Amino acid sequence: MKINYANGKKNNLTTVIKTKSLGMLFENRLNLSNEFYLINSIANIHKKPTPIQVVNVEYPKRSRAKITEAYYRTASTTDYNGVYKGKYIDFEAKETINTSFSFSNISKHQLDHLKNIDQLGGIAFIIIYFRKVDEVYIIDIKKFLTLIESDFKSVTSKNIIEYGQRAEIGYCPPINYLKAVDILYSI
Amino acid sequence: MKINYANGKKNNLTTVIKTKSLGMLFENRLNLSNEFYLINSIANIHKKPTPIQVVNVEYPKRSRAKITEAYYRTASTTDYNGVYKGKYIDFEAKETINTSFSFSNISKHQLDHLKNIDQLGGIAFIIIYFRKVDEVYIIDIKKFLTLIESDFKSVTSKNIIEYGQRAEIGYCPPINYLKAVDILYSI
Repeated sequence: MKINYANGKKNNLTTVIKTKSLGMLFENRLNLSNEFYLINSIANIHKKPTPIQVVNVEYPKRSRAKITEAYYRTASTTDYNGVYKGKYIDFEAKETINTSFSFSNISKHQLDHLKNIDQLGGIAFIIIYFRKVDEVYIIDIKKFLTLIESDFKSVTSKNIIEYGQRAEIGYCPPINYLKAVDILYSI
Repeated sequence: MKINYANGKKNNLTTVIKTKSLGMLFENRLNLSNEFYLINSIANIHKKPTPIQVVNVEYPKRSRAKITEAYYRTASTTDYNGVYKGKYIDFEAKETINTSFSFSNISKHQLDHLKNIDQLGGIAFIIIYFRKVDEVYIIDIKKFLTLIESDFKSVTSKNIIEYGQRAEIGYCPPINYLKAVDILYSI
């Protein structure tokens, strides 16, 4: 793993993460992890912006365009994608306050998208955060679909280890999910 | 190349493209091309939503959330990314009404992003549409950066062929840029 402390940014990031990561939202911890991977030239993975349908925009004099009417749209893809070790990576991030994760929390179009990515040779998975026990797991889309087809309705933090790979929670990066990717996909 | 006419969608798409592609915006033609690649299981490439900073949202009774104040933000990445033949693909699309494309049309953060993707083993390029001559070219980020470092300020539709690869313009897909990718990257 090539570590490149460009511009000395690593130290600043460490400070930010140490002060912020306790009690932080799962999504923010993933975003900070991606920032860590980017700065250290490990991977380039981003959260996609939420798609918004803009209906009306005003152009006040001497200031930037102001959107005055817009609506959230449903994304046709997943939350995160990018490149790691030359490979395409795509995943959906989910969080549950319980020790069980219900499969109904993932929509069909997200599953279809991940299945398609897998068929095209990309790495596709779901990353699940069990807040109650503070544990994160990644589970490959093929395995996930097998579970759904076998009429499983949910996984618990106790039995997910049979199907997925646990990701380390730490400070820098807050969630080292790429290490879990290395193990799960042997790359 | 595996062709999968799932749900007979291909024919509908052909009709849509044939009626729409004349005089259509470059971006729309790229999006239709990506739809063609998706339906035919060739690639999964999407345009990222424009990032928007939401300042105020109202929740009218019995209707969906309405954004009443928001602003466009500058994207930190490029317009398009996805997976093709298992590889990560990332590109920025640019259009010029002239027969010359000025390098100042691409921002530094986009160049930095593409350079980073290339260093991480992904395929990174710029796709340029010369509207006057109705020609499309892809140019690899390494070559593009070499030109900029050599103090070139622009490329014309005549000399870009020395540095890039021409993409076919047709009906279905409207712009077959992945065929140009096959040639340029020998994949």
